[in-house]
Amino acid sequence: MTVSSFPRTVEWVGGIDGFVRMIDQTRLPHELVMLECRDTKAVWEAIKRLSVRGAPAIGIAGAMGAALGILNHAASDRASLLEELDRVCDYLVGSRPTAVNLAWALERMKACARNSHEAEVSRLKESLLAEAIRIRDEDAEMCRAIGQFGEPLITEGCRVLTHCNAGSLATAEFGTALAPFYVAHQRGRRFKVYADETRPLLQGARLTAWELQQAGIDVTVLCDNMAGALMQNGGVDLVITGADRIAANGDVANKIGTYSVAVIAQAHRIPFYVAAPSSTFDLSLPDGSGIPIEHRDADEVRSCLGHPIAPAGVECYCPAFDVTPARLIRGIITERGVISPLGTEVIARLLGEKSST
Amino acid sequence: MTVSSFPRTVEWVGGIDGFVRMIDQTRLPHELVMLECRDTKAVWEAIKRLSVRGAPAIGIAGAMGAALGILNHAASDRASLLEELDRVCDYLVGSRPTAVNLAWALERMKACARNSHEAEVSRLKESLLAEAIRIRDEDAEMCRAIGQFGEPLITEGCRVLTHCNAGSLATAEFGTALAPFYVAHQRGRRFKVYADETRPLLQGARLTAWELQQAGIDVTVLCDNMAGALMQNGGVDLVITGADRIAANGDVANKIGTYSVAVIAQAHRIPFYVAAPSSTFDLSLPDGSGIPIEHRDADEVRSCLGHPIAPAGVECYCPAFDVTPARLIRGIITERGVISPLGTEVIARLLGEKSST
Repeated sequence: MTVSSFPRTVEWVGGIDGFVRMIDQTRLPHELVMLECRDTKAVWEAIKRLSVRGAPAIGIAGAMGAALGILNHAASDRASLLEELDRVCDYLVGSRPTAVNLAWALERMKACARNSHEAEVSRLKESLLAEAIRIRDEDAEMCRAIGQFGEPLITEGCRVLTHCNAGSLATAEFGTALAPFYVAHQRGRRFKVYADETRPLLQGARLTAWELQQAGIDVTVLCDNMAGALMQNGGVDLVITGADRIAANGDVANKIGTYSVAVIAQAHRIPFYVAAPSSTFDLSLPDGSGIPIEHRDADEVRSCLGHPIAPAGVECYCPAFDVTPARLIRGIITERGVISPLGTEVIARLLGEKSST
Repeated sequence: MTVSSFPRTVEWVGGIDGFVRMIDQTRLPHELVMLECRDTKAVWEAIKRLSVRGAPAIGIAGAMGAALGILNHAASDRASLLEELDRVCDYLVGSRPTAVNLAWALERMKACARNSHEAEVSRLKESLLAEAIRIRDEDAEMCRAIGQFGEPLITEGCRVLTHCNAGSLATAEFGTALAPFYVAHQRGRRFKVYADETRPLLQGARLTAWELQQAGIDVTVLCDNMAGALMQNGGVDLVITGADRIAANGDVANKIGTYSVAVIAQAHRIPFYVAAPSSTFDLSLPDGSGIPIEHRDADEVRSCLGHPIAPAGVECYCPAFDVTPARLIRGIITERGVISPLGTEVIARLLGEKSST
């Protein structure tokens, strides 16, 4: 079950002599161009130039890029293959050094090689390719589960607002915040999605609008500062966003602007949900105050898709994320179920119970 | 006393054979280009293409455009001059049919001609030119008064957020929301201004940032969706915005996004002020629910300064204004004083008392 109307975000084409194919997201929303990567360097460049973005999608691309490097390597023995894998992984992780999922996926590839105990080089290569494909399939499975748990929130005729892009294009398929929409749509539900454009990089206008439009889901784009008026006029029944990191008490770090949406939703008693896999929780942080907030280059604010919009050299404020306190969040939709209401104990229980099974 | 570091927004240069000179705002913030209009048609085109914008500035340009038409007209008698004035005013009002100040300024020019009882054509022409210049000077005077009443709010070291451009560039000089900044700056106060970029047309990033930068005032641009995080992090002490129309109870219609700022400011107990001349009040409306909200072309959201940012044909929500309820507004700064707290009676009293003097 895929989002049938457009190709997979990142996939492996063919068998042991195959290659990586991905949607070139730098060309969206104006044209759908598929990028074929036949060696590790091509994958490195694709990640670097943001042809693939979104933490899970970057992890998948990285794992497949490592597989490509191994499959193309003429190693005659296990030891030199493992050495080559280390080299390839070190190289790939440098394409986006702060992407946690990329490092995680590459570590998983290395662990797979170490644990396989396969002496024969060709069999080891097959194991590594299978592992890369498994990383993709597990992500797709997780997104689908989030979609199934979130789908009952998407009632017939409801109007849902989302921010940024936590969709198919950021994951193997379905996404996190958008997954309930895809499941509801497949079940024939009719509803309306409002996509905040999400300055400065406009992932909402460029990516969320594009993927929902491709899937035939009713989507309307609005500037970030219009969501308040829309809520005031009774136009929003529900908000769902993704998350970049979630503290033990349910405080959520997500794309800048999420906090504003949550405050205004609260003022109108509109339920605000977050959708994220359980791997997004960082239980080492008791609350959101410990989440580091990246500040980006001022040029992202000073320009819009490369075109200057403000006086040259003017100072800019450009945080990449903000933190929404748990008290503004009705619930968090995970692949293990919906946590609602939020609290340190219920979160620990859901994550603990399931991870020990 | 003008904002000395850049030329007047719109002014009359020379005497009876002079012309209109204005800042071409379509070229900002990248270059400062002065536009010289030597006939009515040139003024009409400047208003039409938004070289001059902001209700008061449009009114001033319109009045000067009417004066140009009359001065250039070879009428030999009063009757044909009045006829020409009617024709010129009808023509000019069509450059922006919904701009209330434009119609108001042109009506004032016609009333001036009717009331002058001057039989001699050359004297009548002089009266009309003087009236156009008076419209500009009165606006400058009004903005200065708003600035003086608002200035005490700008305490040493404070951080003030504003939205859109209610500044010099929208008026004769000083502006409304920005007038307290200019007065405080002239008095040597040090403070920091945050300018919301104000999508879709980016008047904050393009115009507010430019004019404050020119004046040497410390200004930082941020995307509209970043104001919430800035307030959450304790970075804002005060908000001041302009107004497009104010109902009898103090509900304020202003540029889209103002309502969101007010809700988030309230959540952080940050005082939210509106600055506007008393002519902005529409006492025929008991509250904001009766204020008509213009919806603009979807292409304004689908693109950014002419560059497409969303999939072609995607639906967009594009209200030009929103309504901030009086309960979120700490006070309204007018040229007659600061109204605070708001209420139908205090508003009627201030407006009534002064207008009857």
